[in-house]
Amino acid sequence: MPYTIEQLPDLEDIKVLKHRYFRFMDTGQWSALAALFTETAHIDYRGGTYRCQMDGRDNLVEFLANSFNSDAVAMHHGHMPEITFTGRDTAEGIWYLEDIFIHLDTNLHTFGSAIYHDSYQRVGGEWLIARSEYDRVIEVNMPLDPAIKVDFHYLKKVGRKPEERRDVSHLITWTTDGA
Amino acid sequence: MPYTIEQLPDLEDIKVLKHRYFRFMDTGQWSALAALFTETAHIDYRGGTYRCQMDGRDNLVEFLANSFNSDAVAMHHGHMPEITFTGRDTAEGIWYLEDIFIHLDTNLHTFGSAIYHDSYQRVGGEWLIARSEYDRVIEVNMPLDPAIKVDFHYLKKVGRKPEERRDVSHLITWTTDGA
Amino acid sequence: MPYTIEQLPDLEDIKVLKHRYFRFMDTGQWSALAALFTETAHIDYRGGTYRCQMDGRDNLVEFLANSFNSDAVAMHHGHMPEITFTGRDTAEGIWYLEDIFIHLDTNLHTFGSAIYHDSYQRVGGEWLIARSEYDRVIEVNMPLDPAIKVDFHYLKKVGRKPEERRDVSHLITWTTDGA
Repeated sequence: MPYTIEQLPDLEDIKVLKHRYFRFMDTGQWSALAALFTETAHIDYRGGTYRCQMDGRDNLVEFLANSFNSDAVAMHHGHMPEITFTGRDTAEGIWYLEDIFIHLDTNLHTFGSAIYHDSYQRVGGEWLIARSEYDRVIEVNMPLDPAIKVDFHYLKKVGRKPEERRDVSHLITWTTDGA
Repeated sequence: MPYTIEQLPDLEDIKVLKHRYFRFMDTGQWSALAALFTETAHIDYRGGTYRCQMDGRDNLVEFLANSFNSDAVAMHHGHMPEITFTGRDTAEGIWYLEDIFIHLDTNLHTFGSAIYHDSYQRVGGEWLIARSEYDRVIEVNMPLDPAIKVDFHYLKKVGRKPEERRDVSHLITWTTDGA
Repeated sequence: MPYTIEQLPDLEDIKVLKHRYFRFMDTGQWSALAALFTETAHIDYRGGTYRCQMDGRDNLVEFLANSFNSDAVAMHHGHMPEITFTGRDTAEGIWYLEDIFIHLDTNLHTFGSAIYHDSYQRVGGEWLIARSEYDRVIEVNMPLDPAIKVDFHYLKKVGRKPEERRDVSHLITWTTDGA
């Protein structure tokens, strides 16, 4: 079903909403990121070796702020949106992620891709993410090659230092059955 | 020449058409992918070490279903569309691909990029891909590093098992003059 | 502030403008690339190990033509635009870059990401880039792995050969304080 012309500004707003999610995440802007979600947002990230489930944007921000810490070298790009309006103030979206993640503390180097399924709601005139789930398409893990030099990573400065991090292991389930 | 407001819903439909092509390809959804092409679609993928030419969506699906098999770890992202309308029901498009492809059976690891030139036709109210060609920008090949662990790949489950694969070598020409 | 329907064709034009910038850069189309910038365009690329500052599109083209030479294996993809109109003929944009760059002459292999902040102006009916700056998010450098075979790179044919290159070192500052 084609978009109506009247839907197009909303379509662009939803795209920008998700673009900001990725940008704020990789640059550790947690209060700006929180403002993109409904208070009760539901998250379910189903990776190849992990599953992260949580409810509420406060849990999401706590989870992300601990994962995207000062030892994290992170690139998360969301591509190729397929947005469907399900009402005047509700929509659903599919996005295709590419991610690179290097943990400098554990020397783990990951790259991969995943497909997001999101729900959006307009609340007080602003489009927000109400639900966000993804399923892995590929996940590749390796020890960080000693020849690799991370010459810059933004989170080094703004990410949580080891002593500032909290235990969020209750939000993560480690799995091995995906492989 | 700027888009007219009336063209914008069609523009978004064409973007979503191509987005689905990439998503269906990497997740092995072959009948859904076939429905994105005209019956007589013309394909010409000019890689650095190969050229894949074929006519008809049936040949395309057979080619892809054999290539994106259960040993394939595949990421194909299409970026930065430049769409030009050439008529009420026809358009052309340029897209910039990033691809990662690991063949677990031959331990070949490829990454690269390419530029697509497409033609689109509206048939029975639906935009379809009538022609799709690409030329490599970069193609990098290497043996799969033994340190790399593919912990998840979607096609492992849904891709064709070795005994289900057919010979599509007549659709491929191997070249070495690109390098 | 949501886009008005009347702004949407301009929004698409600005997206295509930036899409062409990346495509022309990676395929060495320098006069086509120059035509995307205002004559006095201001550039400031703040990398992890370098900073490239220049004024004027002629300096930009000279800088790029020397960097994207026949030994350069280059992929630059701009993602997730956040465009804001600041007037009838002016706009600002945020883009999130992914780049891969292999220098075959020095065997340096770089990948990373950066966030662009641009300004656009409509001049004589055409949207142009008037200012473009980026800051690194991640920058990863390594010697080129001898197992890697670059089987194709477009710039090999069209990029400047060693004897055609000029010294642009006055446009680059090398830094180490980012790491």
